[in-house]
Amino acid sequence: MTHTLILLRHGQSDWNEKNLFTGWVDVRLTEQGRREAARGGELMKEQGVLPDVLHTSLLSRAIQTANLALETADRLWVPVKRSWRLNERHYGALQGKDKAQTLEEYGQEKFMEWRRSFDVPPPEIDADDEFAQTNDPRYDGMDGEMPATESLKLVIDRMLPYWENEIVPDLKAGKTVLVTAHGNSLRALVKHLDGISDEDIAGLNIPTGIPLVYELDDNMVPTGPGRYLDPEAAAAGAAAVASQGKK
Amino acid sequence: MTHTLILLRHGQSDWNEKNLFTGWVDVRLTEQGRREAARGGELMKEQGVLPDVLHTSLLSRAIQTANLALETADRLWVPVKRSWRLNERHYGALQGKDKAQTLEEYGQEKFMEWRRSFDVPPPEIDADDEFAQTNDPRYDGMDGEMPATESLKLVIDRMLPYWENEIVPDLKAGKTVLVTAHGNSLRALVKHLDGISDEDIAGLNIPTGIPLVYELDDNMVPTGPGRYLDPEAAAAGAAAVASQGKK
Repeated sequence: MTHTLILLRHGQSDWNEKNLFTGWVDVRLTEQGRREAARGGELMKEQGVLPDVLHTSLLSRAIQTANLALETADRLWVPVKRSWRLNERHYGALQGKDKAQTLEEYGQEKFMEWRRSFDVPPPEIDADDEFAQTNDPRYDGMDGEMPATESLKLVIDRMLPYWENEIVPDLKAGKTVLVTAHGNSLRALVKHLDGISDEDIAGLNIPTGIPLVYELDDNMVPTGPGRYLDPEAAAAGAAAVASQGKK
Repeated sequence: MTHTLILLRHGQSDWNEKNLFTGWVDVRLTEQGRREAARGGELMKEQGVLPDVLHTSLLSRAIQTANLALETADRLWVPVKRSWRLNERHYGALQGKDKAQTLEEYGQEKFMEWRRSFDVPPPEIDADDEFAQTNDPRYDGMDGEMPATESLKLVIDRMLPYWENEIVPDLKAGKTVLVTAHGNSLRALVKHLDGISDEDIAGLNIPTGIPLVYELDDNMVPTGPGRYLDPEAAAAGAAAVASQGKK
């Protein structure tokens, strides 16, 4: 028997639409993003890939995505666990900045380095920056673990303990697990599952709103490649993500 | 220091509108019900009564209410616990029946007895009735505890252990607790909190969509009467609920 894991990246948010670095800033889904989420739930329902438990980040856009997808899939009642460890990558001082403006200020090289390099984080955000989460009560109790910026490597470092300690036990208990999260926290997980190298992960783009299903053996190793529930839309979506920030 | 408990009854559902006995049948909110839920969240936000943790039933209409209220209150990220023990009263063989039809078939006396008496449950529902929840996966693991009908007394009997074991510990930990549930599971809780007699509870009507806030001492005794965040709307709403089924 295999264990089923469903990954779902949130759909379009207010700041995706405006082309701003979002990171931990708690923006909401747009109407398009809401439709993407509902479509994700439809795909799960149509293909009978139904979650028994949900794990989400602490960011509204991932939680909205989960709520809408579960509503469509008729699984609103499943147990829920949330963690900052599934949050989007913290973009440091870039949070709230226009991507085109960042390109102009720092140049294409720095921009691409911060955006896609494995281990180079952007400059840290100031605690009193309007786009820092300094007094946000959802992060109470994190103590010294609150990041001020993150590379993808740092995302992996904080995501993996949650995978091991919270998600894997649900999978081993025979539950189908839905993880609704973000471009980079899901890339971190896919890198781990598929054994993608530090170099190659830069080229991986996960499309929004399309459930990505893994079957895992008892050692939590995928028995095959991840399978999108709508492969054609996934291919088109990945291409659209890859072109982000190029305008 | 007191402990803050917020009770929120779900708004109009598809079957409220159609005047059918709902019970454990998993109907959704109407558009009006969705607006009521969002308004509940607005009231919490405006008055700064903000939940740190959510407890809901396993029924979609209560979960939708919670999701919409938390979205409006900007608290989507709070931890969530769900239990069948917060479900609506199981209406037995009446589930799925038109209220006016039930009145006609059984007469006003039986109707009012089943609807409002403390300890007389309606006839049991058949396991193969289309409105029974016999193979609903959300109730897996309940074993012999799945009801086939309930009086308000039986609702209290199954709700109180959840109150003591799950909700009270959150309150004692200093958390503001939101409970989104149903007319009868909330009446059961209010009866317990306010020490209402078995006779008088029949006269208590909790309006939909308006947060009802209790401050409790360390012994979980209310320091005063429950306070609706919109008292005028609450009075109008209670009157509307009291007249349900009279048409």
